[in-house]
Amino acid sequence: MSRFWSKKVHSLKPYVPGEQPQLENLIKLNTNENPYAPSPKVLEAISKATNESLRKYPDPNGLGLKQTIADYYDLDLNQVFIGNSSDEVLGHAFQALLKQDQPLLFPDISYSFYPVYCRLFGINYQQIPLRADFSIGIDDYQSEGGAVIFANPNAPTGLALDLHKIAELLEQNTDRLVVIDEAYADFSEHSAVGLVQRHANLLVVQTLSKSRALAGLRVGFALGQADLISGLERVKNSFHPYALDSLALAGAVAAFDDDAYFKKHCSMIIDTRDRFSQELKQLGFEVLPSAANFVFAKHKSKPAKDLFEDLRKEAIIVRYFDKPRLDNYLRISIGTDKEMQTLLNKLGLILNQDNFST
Amino acid sequence: MSRFWSKKVHSLKPYVPGEQPQLENLIKLNTNENPYAPSPKVLEAISKATNESLRKYPDPNGLGLKQTIADYYDLDLNQVFIGNSSDEVLGHAFQALLKQDQPLLFPDISYSFYPVYCRLFGINYQQIPLRADFSIGIDDYQSEGGAVIFANPNAPTGLALDLHKIAELLEQNTDRLVVIDEAYADFSEHSAVGLVQRHANLLVVQTLSKSRALAGLRVGFALGQADLISGLERVKNSFHPYALDSLALAGAVAAFDDDAYFKKHCSMIIDTRDRFSQELKQLGFEVLPSAANFVFAKHKSKPAKDLFEDLRKEAIIVRYFDKPRLDNYLRISIGTDKEMQTLLNKLGLILNQDNFST
Repeated sequence: MSRFWSKKVHSLKPYVPGEQPQLENLIKLNTNENPYAPSPKVLEAISKATNESLRKYPDPNGLGLKQTIADYYDLDLNQVFIGNSSDEVLGHAFQALLKQDQPLLFPDISYSFYPVYCRLFGINYQQIPLRADFSIGIDDYQSEGGAVIFANPNAPTGLALDLHKIAELLEQNTDRLVVIDEAYADFSEHSAVGLVQRHANLLVVQTLSKSRALAGLRVGFALGQADLISGLERVKNSFHPYALDSLALAGAVAAFDDDAYFKKHCSMIIDTRDRFSQELKQLGFEVLPSAANFVFAKHKSKPAKDLFEDLRKEAIIVRYFDKPRLDNYLRISIGTDKEMQTLLNKLGLILNQDNFST
Repeated sequence: MSRFWSKKVHSLKPYVPGEQPQLENLIKLNTNENPYAPSPKVLEAISKATNESLRKYPDPNGLGLKQTIADYYDLDLNQVFIGNSSDEVLGHAFQALLKQDQPLLFPDISYSFYPVYCRLFGINYQQIPLRADFSIGIDDYQSEGGAVIFANPNAPTGLALDLHKIAELLEQNTDRLVVIDEAYADFSEHSAVGLVQRHANLLVVQTLSKSRALAGLRVGFALGQADLISGLERVKNSFHPYALDSLALAGAVAAFDDDAYFKKHCSMIIDTRDRFSQELKQLGFEVLPSAANFVFAKHKSKPAKDLFEDLRKEAIIVRYFDKPRLDNYLRISIGTDKEMQTLLNKLGLILNQDNFST
């Protein structure tokens, strides 16, 4: 509290990120980071850019990166917006596009940052409950509400909404903007990027943090028709025009250029995820079918909170949400095969111990 | 224009940064960049951080960098806020602290981003004219207004307000926040950082872009008492918690660690500035006494716009502002001695040519 705070500050409920402990030998499966290194070409490009030119401002428009992304997705340059992480891109989207007279609609269970942005920007919103099976029912969004945002695949459930459902939502609501937050889409087959040219009311937001193993570099982007992008640019250029530093710009371009590396490692994570899901089931877990780089699972008898704490004692950190409907689930990021095997072994021991003690 | 824009977006007047042409052999003296490379230790620290750990999120609190800055300025950890450039830090300050019922006061001539933030965040403001000699008269800020912000040294004038004047302003207005934007303070002897412990109503904002030659890395910070800093943190953590990437954090720490390099290059720029100012005067310029890494000057006979255009033809870019009171001045960043000599030579030729043709 301070007499110097603006009124707004008092009302905020800031986001609490997953913890980032800096311990050695920790198996860290709590913030959906990629277990594999970024492409060597990314590291090379950053090294090359680490020189005396850092004294100069970066290109405020980041044209090189925008063109790379536009080419990659077969879009025009003016259909690409880039920002310092998808969190920042989402923030600009809330302010530039999602703040409307009608309340913004999003699922009650999704990226927990959405209500935080709404408080920051004074946006009315209405949370639509996920169905009993945790799915997003698009019929529930056909109300009198305003714009719509959700993550697809959704977090922390990992469930993906089929593309034809998204197309249906877009077609039936041409006057309402739909923002799809695709932080995890590269681990699925459900990206809506291919719908951008056809739908004036679609904005897709992505990040390099997960699928391109660059959480440390803070690069996100949005794809949509030119008028949506120029709205984002107006807000960004009223806040900080040089949002992306020279190293992030160089590394991000290289991440798109090395497509073989990207595809190979996405496949590896998907394979591990599918195997791990099967093995979790054999340990008595119910596992939601995941289209992301994490799984959302609950055990048939042992409470999630106990499992979370027991794993922590074994230096394995997963994510636990102390919230209604979620509080008996664990969200487990997909690590390497070896990490997941260690986790399965530890879970086996923990669950077995319980069997003996009862 | 777009039917999907929020009302706010229509009313924005985004900032227009100085141009960043990517031509070879250009003498670029238009955006106050440092002419010298960053410390080799900065490049080394970034290279060391360019590794597989980029797959992981950075520390959202940036504790390592905050501690380094706190130690450097002999402040507490909770008196330091860090952000992705001082533009972002200023943006958070406008939203968290400078948005009050009473209008925000700032000079009519100062960093031209201030009114842009006010539009973005819906802040009432009143611009106080600089005195006839372009100085800030602190008596002019003793009105019924709210908080105060100005750059010191001011931009684009380069003039610095004496520290005892700032102390006087703080003491006479203990209920009003005063934000000093010190982007250029390292080139002067007028930093207000030493006043932070004594004045609850002072926030100082600085950047690594100019004096530490890291415009390409995007790192800024604010220093103030703990309640001011926590207000900034609340807004930042409602917008994007991981604002600084891992490479920027590593490079910024090294920039403070190599204090000898920093001090040496600041001195070199100050020396060049003072010599260059004298030589400009000999060419018939009136030069404001600069405490920054640029000078603000007008020629006794040749219009600034013509000089700007003539220099451009010679591949020398300086900054020209087409605004009342400023439109007969050039803002010239201080480059290397060699660059400034080339500029002086070209100016000599341009002005001499005019003498022959009249």
